[in-house]
Amino acid sequence: MKTRDKIIQASIVLFNEQGERNVTTNHIAADLGISPGNLYYHFRNKEDIILSIYEEYARNLLIETMPEVNPDVKPLDAIILYMDVVFLAMMKFRFFYSNLPVLLAKNPLLHDKYVEVQGFIAQRVSELLLSLRNANMMDFLDEDLPDIVSILRLVNTFWLSFYQTQNNDNEMNDAVFYQGVLKILVIIQPYISDEAKDEFLEARAMYRQRCQDSLKVA
Amino acid sequence: MKTRDKIIQASIVLFNEQGERNVTTNHIAADLGISPGNLYYHFRNKEDIILSIYEEYARNLLIETMPEVNPDVKPLDAIILYMDVVFLAMMKFRFFYSNLPVLLAKNPLLHDKYVEVQGFIAQRVSELLLSLRNANMMDFLDEDLPDIVSILRLVNTFWLSFYQTQNNDNEMNDAVFYQGVLKILVIIQPYISDEAKDEFLEARAMYRQRCQDSLKVA
Repeated sequence: MKTRDKIIQASIVLFNEQGERNVTTNHIAADLGISPGNLYYHFRNKEDIILSIYEEYARNLLIETMPEVNPDVKPLDAIILYMDVVFLAMMKFRFFYSNLPVLLAKNPLLHDKYVEVQGFIAQRVSELLLSLRNANMMDFLDEDLPDIVSILRLVNTFWLSFYQTQNNDNEMNDAVFYQGVLKILVIIQPYISDEAKDEFLEARAMYRQRCQDSLKVA
Repeated sequence: MKTRDKIIQASIVLFNEQGERNVTTNHIAADLGISPGNLYYHFRNKEDIILSIYEEYARNLLIETMPEVNPDVKPLDAIILYMDVVFLAMMKFRFFYSNLPVLLAKNPLLHDKYVEVQGFIAQRVSELLLSLRNANMMDFLDEDLPDIVSILRLVNTFWLSFYQTQNNDNEMNDAVFYQGVLKILVIIQPYISDEAKDEFLEARAMYRQRCQDSLKVA
Protein backbone atom coordinates (compact mmCIF):
# COMPACT_ATOMS: atom_id res chain seq x y z
CA MET A 1 0.00 0.00 0.00
CA LYS A 2 1.24 3.49 -0.79
CA THR A 3 2.17 5.71 2.16
CA ARG A 4 -0.66 8.09 1.30
CA ASP A 5 -3.22 5.28 1.51
CA LYS A 6 -1.66 3.95 4.71
CA ILE A 7 -2.04 7.40 6.29
CA ILE A 8 -5.70 7.51 5.29
CA GLN A 9 -6.43 4.01 6.61
CA ALA A 10 -4.61 4.61 9.91
CA SER A 11 -6.38 7.97 10.34
CA ILE A 12 -9.84 6.43 9.92
CA VAL A 13 -9.05 3.82 12.58
CA LEU A 14 -7.58 6.35 15.03
CA PHE A 15 -10.35 8.92 14.49
CA ASN A 16 -13.04 6.26 15.03
CA GLU A 17 -11.38 4.82 18.12
CA GLN A 18 -10.26 8.00 19.86
CA GLY A 19 -12.45 10.73 18.37
CA GLU A 20 -11.13 13.04 15.66
CA ARG A 21 -10.42 15.95 18.00
CA ASN A 22 -8.15 13.81 20.20
CA VAL A 23 -5.90 12.68 17.32
CA THR A 24 -3.10 14.88 15.93
CA THR A 25 -0.98 14.39 12.79
CA ASN A 26 1.88 13.44 15.14
CA HIS A 27 -0.23 10.61 16.57
CA ILE A 28 -0.97 9.36 13.07
CA ALA A 29 2.71 9.48 12.03
CA ALA A 30 3.75 7.69 15.26
CA ASP A 31 1.11 5.01 14.74
CA LEU A 32 2.55 4.27 11.28
CA GLY A 33 6.17 4.60 12.42
CA ILE A 34 6.85 7.37 9.88
CA SER A 35 8.24 10.86 10.48
CA PRO A 36 5.88 13.85 10.74
CA GLY A 37 7.81 15.27 7.75
CA ASN A 38 6.86 12.25 5.66
CA LEU A 39 3.21 12.73 6.60
CA TYR A 40 3.38 16.44 5.69
CA TYR A 41 4.83 15.45 2.30
CA HIS A 42 1.43 13.84 1.56
CA PHE A 43 -0.97 16.07 3.49
CA ARG A 44 -0.84 19.74 4.51
CA ASN A 45 -2.62 19.17 7.82
CA LYS A 46 -5.30 17.11 9.56
CA GLU A 47 -8.10 18.92 7.74
CA ASP A 48 -6.47 17.89 4.46
CA ILE A 49 -6.48 14.22 5.57
CA ILE A 50 -10.15 14.42 6.56
CA LEU A 51 -11.05 16.01 3.22
CA SER A 52 -9.23 13.21 1.37
CA ILE A 53 -10.98 10.56 3.46
CA TYR A 54 -14.33 12.07 2.63
CA GLU A 55 -13.53 12.41 -1.07
CA GLU A 56 -12.01 8.98 -1.61
CA TYR A 57 -14.16 6.84 0.65
CA ALA A 58 -17.47 8.38 1.61
CA ARG A 59 -18.07 9.66 -1.92
CA ASN A 60 -17.27 6.27 -3.49
CA LEU A 61 -19.29 4.39 -0.92
CA LEU A 62 -22.26 6.73 -0.93
CA ILE A 63 -22.45 7.48 -4.62
CA GLU A 64 -20.95 4.65 -6.63
CA THR A 65 -22.46 1.86 -4.58
CA MET A 66 -25.78 3.63 -4.12
CA PRO A 67 -28.50 1.63 -5.86
CA GLU A 68 -29.69 3.15 -9.09
CA VAL A 69 -33.34 3.17 -10.01
CA ASN A 70 -33.34 0.02 -12.09
CA PRO A 71 -36.27 -1.97 -13.52
CA ASP A 72 -34.52 -5.24 -12.58
CA VAL A 73 -34.46 -4.38 -8.87
CA LYS A 74 -37.65 -4.52 -6.84
CA PRO A 75 -38.25 -0.99 -5.50
CA LEU A 76 -38.43 -2.03 -1.87
CA ASP A 77 -35.22 -4.02 -2.23
CA ALA A 78 -33.61 -0.89 -3.68
CA ILE A 79 -34.57 1.19 -0.66
CA ILE A 80 -33.34 -1.50 1.75
CA LEU A 81 -30.09 -1.79 -0.21
CA TYR A 82 -29.77 1.99 0.04
CA MET A 83 -30.21 1.94 3.80
CA ASP A 84 -27.58 -0.78 4.12
CA VAL A 85 -25.16 1.38 2.11
CA VAL A 86 -25.87 4.52 4.10
CA PHE A 87 -25.58 2.81 7.47
CA LEU A 88 -22.46 0.91 6.42
CA ALA A 89 -20.86 4.25 5.51
CA MET A 90 -21.95 5.66 8.87
CA MET A 91 -20.33 2.76 10.68
CA LYS A 92 -17.09 3.00 8.70
CA PHE A 93 -16.82 6.79 9.13
CA ARG A 94 -18.43 7.15 12.51
CA PHE A 95 -15.89 9.78 13.59
CA PHE A 96 -17.16 11.88 10.71
CA TYR A 97 -20.86 11.60 11.56
CA SER A 98 -20.43 11.96 15.30
CA ASN A 99 -18.95 15.44 14.97
CA LEU A 100 -20.21 16.63 11.59
CA PRO A 101 -21.17 20.30 12.16
CA VAL A 102 -17.82 21.07 13.82
CA LEU A 103 -15.76 19.28 11.15
CA LEU A 104 -17.59 21.13 8.37
CA ALA A 105 -17.34 24.50 10.11
CA LYS A 106 -13.55 24.08 10.45
CA ASN A 107 -13.03 23.07 6.83
CA PRO A 108 -14.73 25.11 4.07
CA LEU A 109 -13.47 22.83 1.27
CA LEU A 110 -14.95 19.83 3.07
CA HIS A 111 -18.21 21.75 3.57
CA ASP A 112 -18.49 22.53 -0.16
CA LYS A 113 -17.77 18.92 -1.08
CA TYR A 114 -20.26 17.69 1.51
CA VAL A 115 -23.04 19.97 0.23
CA GLU A 116 -22.33 18.78 -3.34
CA VAL A 117 -22.46 15.08 -2.37
CA GLN A 118 -25.60 15.64 -0.27
CA GLY A 119 -27.33 17.26 -3.24
CA PHE A 120 -26.59 14.14 -5.25
CA ILE A 121 -27.87 11.88 -2.47
CA ALA A 122 -31.09 13.89 -2.05
CA GLN A 123 -31.68 13.52 -5.80
CA ARG A 124 -31.12 9.77 -5.66
CA VAL A 125 -33.41 9.30 -2.64
CA SER A 126 -36.14 11.31 -4.40
CA GLU A 127 -35.82 9.04 -7.44
CA LEU A 128 -36.04 5.95 -5.25
CA LEU A 129 -39.21 7.18 -3.53
CA LEU A 130 -40.76 8.17 -6.87
CA SER A 131 -39.97 4.72 -8.28
CA LEU A 132 -41.72 3.18 -5.25
CA ARG A 133 -44.74 5.40 -5.98
CA ASN A 134 -44.69 4.46 -9.68
CA ALA A 135 -44.70 0.80 -8.66
CA ASN A 136 -47.79 1.53 -6.50
CA MET A 137 -45.83 0.67 -3.37
CA MET A 138 -45.92 4.14 -1.84
CA ASP A 139 -48.26 7.07 -1.92
CA PHE A 140 -47.37 10.69 -1.15
CA LEU A 141 -48.07 14.15 -2.54
CA ASP A 142 -45.48 15.78 -4.81
CA GLU A 143 -45.42 18.79 -2.49
CA ASP A 144 -44.43 16.59 0.47
CA LEU A 145 -41.57 14.77 -1.28
CA PRO A 146 -38.77 17.30 -0.55
CA ASP A 147 -39.69 17.34 3.17
CA ILE A 148 -39.83 13.53 3.36
CA VAL A 149 -36.41 13.30 1.70
CA SER A 150 -34.99 15.92 4.09
CA ILE A 151 -36.34 14.07 7.12
CA LEU A 152 -34.85 10.77 5.92
CA ARG A 153 -31.46 12.42 5.34
CA LEU A 154 -31.58 14.22 8.68
CA VAL A 155 -32.35 11.00 10.58
CA ASN A 156 -29.64 9.10 8.67
CA THR A 157 -27.05 11.80 9.22
CA PHE A 158 -27.69 12.42 12.91
CA TRP A 159 -28.83 9.02 14.13
CA LEU A 160 -25.40 8.30 15.53
CA SER A 161 -25.14 11.70 17.25
CA PHE A 162 -28.63 11.22 18.69
CA TYR A 163 -27.73 7.77 20.00
CA GLN A 164 -24.56 9.15 21.59
CA THR A 165 -26.40 12.01 23.30
CA GLN A 166 -29.06 9.65 24.69
CA ASN A 167 -26.75 6.97 26.05
CA ASN A 168 -23.95 7.17 28.51
CA ASP A 169 -21.99 4.32 27.01
CA ASN A 170 -20.08 5.18 23.87
CA GLU A 171 -19.93 1.65 22.57
CA MET A 172 -20.92 1.25 18.96
CA ASN A 173 -22.24 -2.03 17.62
CA ASP A 174 -24.45 -3.29 14.82
CA ALA A 175 -27.54 -3.01 17.01
CA VAL A 176 -27.12 0.79 17.06
CA PHE A 177 -27.22 0.86 13.28
CA TYR A 178 -30.18 -1.49 12.96
CA GLN A 179 -32.06 0.72 15.41
CA GLY A 180 -31.35 3.59 13.01
CA VAL A 181 -32.66 1.63 10.04
CA LEU A 182 -35.80 0.84 12.03
CA LYS A 183 -36.36 4.58 12.60
CA ILE A 184 -36.15 5.14 8.83
CA LEU A 185 -38.71 2.37 8.28
CA VAL A 186 -41.09 3.98 10.79
CA ILE A 187 -40.87 7.26 8.84
CA ILE A 188 -41.61 5.50 5.54
CA GLN A 189 -44.33 3.19 6.86
CA PRO A 190 -47.34 5.57 6.71
CA TYR A 191 -46.68 6.14 3.00
CA ILE A 192 -46.57 2.44 2.10
CA SER A 193 -49.58 1.42 0.01
CA ASP A 194 -51.91 -1.37 1.10
CA GLU A 195 -50.67 -3.74 -1.60
CA ALA A 196 -47.04 -3.37 -0.46
CA LYS A 197 -47.84 -3.51 3.27
CA ASP A 198 -47.07 -7.21 3.72
CA GLU A 199 -43.73 -7.00 1.94
CA PHE A 200 -42.84 -3.90 3.94
CA LEU A 201 -43.77 -5.41 7.31
CA GLU A 202 -41.67 -8.45 6.40
CA ALA A 203 -38.66 -6.17 5.79
CA ARG A 204 -39.30 -4.38 9.08
CA ALA A 205 -39.53 -7.70 10.93
CA MET A 206 -36.23 -8.77 9.35
CA TYR A 207 -34.46 -5.65 10.63
CA ARG A 208 -36.03 -6.09 14.07
CA GLN A 209 -34.65 -9.65 14.10
CA ARG A 210 -31.20 -8.48 12.96
CA CYS A 211 -31.26 -5.85 15.69
CA GLN A 212 -32.14 -8.41 18.37
CA ASP A 213 -29.53 -10.86 17.08
CA SER A 214 -26.79 -8.25 17.22
CA LEU A 215 -27.86 -7.26 20.75
CA LYS A 216 -27.24 -10.86 21.78
CA VAL A 217 -23.77 -10.84 20.24
CA ALA A 218 -22.86 -7.46 21.80
CA MET B 1 -28.16 41.65 38.31
CA LYS B 2 -25.78 39.46 40.31
CA THR B 3 -22.33 38.81 38.85
CA ARG B 4 -23.10 35.11 38.50
CA ASP B 5 -26.18 35.86 36.37
CA LYS B 6 -24.28 38.44 34.33
CA ILE B 7 -21.64 35.80 33.53
CA ILE B 8 -24.33 33.38 32.39
CA GLN B 9 -26.09 35.96 30.20
CA ALA B 10 -22.85 37.19 28.61
CA SER B 11 -21.72 33.61 27.99
CA ILE B 12 -24.94 32.70 26.15
CA VAL B 13 -24.56 35.75 23.88
CA LEU B 14 -20.85 35.11 23.17
CA PHE B 15 -21.32 31.36 22.64
CA ASN B 16 -24.20 31.97 20.21
CA GLU B 17 -22.39 34.68 18.28
CA GLN B 18 -18.90 33.19 18.11
CA GLY B 19 -19.41 29.48 18.70
CA GLU B 20 -18.74 27.90 22.06
CA ARG B 21 -15.33 26.47 21.15
CA ASN B 22 -14.03 29.94 20.15
CA VAL B 23 -14.90 31.58 23.49
CA THR B 24 -12.66 31.23 26.57
CA THR B 25 -13.38 32.21 30.17
CA ASN B 26 -10.94 35.11 29.61
CA HIS B 27 -13.10 36.39 26.74
CA ILE B 28 -16.17 36.23 28.96
CA ALA B 29 -14.44 38.09 31.81
CA ALA B 30 -13.11 40.74 29.39
CA ASP B 31 -16.56 41.19 27.85
CA LEU B 32 -17.99 41.94 31.31
CA GLY B 33 -15.03 44.04 32.42
CA ILE B 34 -14.35 41.76 35.40
CA SER B 35 -11.14 39.95 36.36
CA PRO B 36 -10.68 36.26 35.47
CA GLY B 37 -10.29 35.69 39.22
CA ASN B 38 -13.77 37.11 39.83
CA LEU B 39 -15.19 34.77 37.17
CA TYR B 40 -13.41 31.78 38.76
CA TYR B 41 -14.96 32.73 42.11
CA HIS B 42 -18.35 31.86 40.55
CA PHE B 43 -17.44 29.06 38.11
CA ARG B 44 -14.65 26.47 38.10
CA ASN B 45 -14.27 26.51 34.29
CA LYS B 46 -16.14 26.92 31.02
CA GLU B 47 -17.77 23.48 31.35
CA ASP B 48 -19.16 24.61 34.70
CA ILE B 49 -20.71 27.70 33.06
CA ILE B 50 -22.28 25.58 30.30
CA LEU B 51 -23.71 23.15 32.86
CA SER B 52 -25.23 26.05 34.81
CA ILE B 53 -26.70 27.52 31.61
CA TYR B 54 -28.31 24.18 30.80
CA GLU B 55 -29.60 23.67 34.32
CA GLU B 56 -31.00 27.13 34.91
CA TYR B 57 -32.35 28.02 31.47
CA ALA B 58 -32.88 25.03 29.17
CA ARG B 59 -34.41 23.00 31.97
CA ASN B 60 -36.76 25.81 33.00
CA LEU B 61 -37.69 26.61 29.43
CA LEU B 62 -38.14 23.01 28.32
CA ILE B 63 -39.81 21.61 31.39
CA GLU B 64 -41.65 24.32 33.26
CA THR B 65 -43.11 26.01 30.19
CA MET B 66 -43.78 22.74 28.42
CA PRO B 67 -47.54 22.36 27.96
CA GLU B 68 -49.13 19.83 30.25
CA VAL B 69 -51.77 17.47 29.05
CA ASN B 70 -54.79 19.50 30.13
CA PRO B 71 -58.48 19.08 29.32
CA ASP B 72 -58.83 22.86 28.84
CA VAL B 73 -56.30 22.96 26.01
CA LYS B 74 -57.21 21.59 22.60
CA PRO B 75 -54.74 18.74 21.90
CA LEU B 76 -53.51 20.15 18.60
CA ASP B 77 -52.96 23.53 20.24
CA ALA B 78 -50.92 21.76 22.91
CA ILE B 79 -48.62 20.16 20.35
CA ILE B 80 -48.17 23.46 18.51
CA LEU B 81 -47.45 25.21 21.79
CA TYR B 82 -44.90 22.49 22.52
CA MET B 83 -43.16 23.02 19.19
CA ASP B 84 -43.01 26.75 19.82
CA VAL B 85 -41.39 26.09 23.21
CA VAL B 86 -38.86 23.61 21.80
CA PHE B 87 -37.88 25.78 18.88
CA LEU B 88 -37.69 28.89 21.05
CA ALA B 89 -35.26 27.03 23.32
CA MET B 90 -33.26 25.97 20.26
CA MET B 91 -33.03 29.57 19.09
CA LYS B 92 -32.00 30.89 22.51
CA PHE B 93 -29.38 28.16 23.06
CA ARG B 94 -28.30 27.59 19.50
CA PHE B 95 -24.65 27.24 20.55
CA PHE B 96 -25.74 24.27 22.61
CA TYR B 97 -27.67 22.48 19.86
CA SER B 98 -25.17 23.21 17.09
CA ASN B 99 -22.42 21.28 18.89
CA LEU B 100 -24.31 18.94 21.19
CA PRO B 101 -22.41 15.60 20.93
CA VAL B 102 -19.06 17.31 21.55
CA LEU B 103 -20.33 19.38 24.48
CA LEU B 104 -21.85 16.31 26.13
CA ALA B 105 -18.75 14.15 25.52
CA LYS B 106 -16.56 16.78 27.21
CA ASN B 107 -18.79 17.16 30.22
CA PRO B 108 -20.10 14.01 31.99
CA LEU B 109 -22.19 16.01 34.50
CA LEU B 110 -23.87 17.83 31.62
CA HIS B 111 -24.44 14.51 29.84
CA ASP B 112 -26.16 13.00 32.88
CA LYS B 113 -28.35 16.07 33.31
CA TYR B 114 -29.17 16.09 29.59
CA VAL B 115 -30.21 12.40 29.61
CA GLU B 116 -32.40 13.06 32.66
CA VAL B 117 -34.13 16.06 31.05
CA GLN B 118 -34.56 14.20 27.74
CA GLY B 119 -36.26 11.32 29.55
CA PHE B 120 -38.74 13.81 30.99
CA ILE B 121 -39.33 15.36 27.57
CA ALA B 122 -39.86 11.97 25.91
CA GLN B 123 -42.44 11.17 28.56
CA ARG B 124 -44.25 14.46 28.00
CA VAL B 125 -44.26 14.09 24.20
CA SER B 126 -45.67 10.56 24.57
CA GLU B 127 -48.45 11.92 26.77
CA LEU B 128 -49.24 14.66 24.25
CA LEU B 129 -49.48 12.17 21.38
CA LEU B 130 -51.62 9.83 23.47
CA SER B 131 -53.94 12.72 24.36
CA LEU B 132 -54.27 13.47 20.64
CA ARG B 133 -55.17 9.83 20.04
CA ASN B 134 -57.69 9.84 22.89
CA ALA B 135 -59.30 12.91 21.33
CA ASN B 136 -59.55 10.97 18.03
CA MET B 137 -57.20 13.41 16.36
CA MET B 138 -54.38 10.94 15.75
CA ASP B 139 -54.12 7.25 15.13
CA PHE B 140 -51.03 5.09 15.71
CA LEU B 141 -50.15 1.70 17.14
CA ASP B 142 -48.87 1.49 20.71
CA GLU B 143 -45.79 -0.37 19.47
CA ASP B 144 -44.89 2.53 17.14
CA LEU B 145 -45.20 5.28 19.78
CA PRO B 146 -41.63 5.09 21.19
CA ASP B 147 -40.16 5.26 17.67
CA ILE B 148 -42.37 8.20 16.67
CA VAL B 149 -41.36 10.06 19.85
CA SER B 150 -37.67 9.32 19.18
CA ILE B 151 -37.92 10.58 15.60
CA LEU B 152 -39.63 13.80 16.72
CA ARG B 153 -36.94 14.38 19.37
CA LEU B 154 -34.12 13.55 16.93
CA VAL B 155 -35.44 16.01 14.33
CA ASN B 156 -35.99 18.73 16.96
CA THR B 157 -32.54 18.24 18.46
CA PHE B 158 -30.56 18.11 15.23
CA TRP B 159 -32.59 20.32 12.93
CA LEU B 160 -30.19 23.21 13.51
CA SER B 161 -27.11 21.03 12.92
CA PHE B 162 -28.70 19.65 9.76
CA TYR B 163 -29.48 23.13 8.48
CA GLN B 164 -25.92 24.25 9.18
CA THR B 165 -24.40 21.26 7.36
CA GLN B 166 -26.61 21.81 4.30
CA ASN B 167 -26.07 25.54 3.93
CA ASN B 168 -22.92 27.52 3.50
CA ASP B 169 -24.24 30.62 5.21
CA ASN B 170 -24.28 30.46 8.96
CA GLU B 171 -26.99 33.05 9.40
CA MET B 172 -29.77 32.08 11.73
CA ASN B 173 -33.20 33.59 11.44
CA ASP B 174 -36.80 32.73 12.28
CA ALA B 175 -37.30 31.11 8.86
CA VAL B 176 -34.81 28.39 9.81
CA PHE B 177 -36.88 27.54 12.85
CA TYR B 178 -40.21 27.58 11.04
CA GLN B 179 -38.72 25.21 8.47
CA GLY B 180 -37.88 22.91 11.39
CA VAL B 181 -41.45 23.09 12.73
CA LEU B 182 -42.72 22.24 9.25
CA LYS B 183 -40.55 19.10 9.23
CA ILE B 184 -42.14 18.04 12.52
CA LEU B 185 -45.60 18.59 11.05
CA VAL B 186 -44.73 16.43 8.03
CA ILE B 187 -43.73 13.59 10.39
CA ILE B 188 -46.99 13.89 12.33
CA GLN B 189 -49.26 14.36 9.32
CA PRO B 190 -49.73 10.69 8.29
CA TYR B 191 -51.03 9.90 11.79
CA ILE B 192 -53.63 12.68 11.85
CA SER B 193 -57.16 11.28 11.72
CA ASP B 194 -59.61 12.32 9.01
CA GLU B 195 -61.72 14.36 11.43
CA ALA B 196 -58.71 16.44 12.52
CA LYS B 197 -57.24 16.83 9.02
CA ASP B 198 -58.71 20.28 8.34
CA GLU B 199 -57.56 21.72 11.66
CA PHE B 200 -54.11 20.21 11.12
CA LEU B 201 -53.72 21.52 7.57
CA GLU B 202 -54.75 24.95 8.85
CA ALA B 203 -51.93 24.81 11.42
CA ARG B 204 -49.48 23.68 8.75
CA ALA B 205 -50.58 26.52 6.45
CA MET B 206 -50.10 29.00 9.30
CA TYR B 207 -46.49 27.84 9.83
CA ARG B 208 -45.82 27.95 6.09
CA GLN B 209 -47.08 31.54 6.09
CA ARG B 210 -44.93 32.44 9.11
CA CYS B 211 -41.94 30.88 7.37
CA GLN B 212 -42.52 32.90 4.20
CA ASP B 213 -43.11 36.10 6.18
CA SER B 214 -39.84 35.69 8.07
CA LEU B 215 -37.97 35.00 4.80
CA LYS B 216 -39.20 38.42 3.59
CA VAL B 217 -37.92 40.13 6.74
CA ALA B 218 -34.54 38.31 6.61
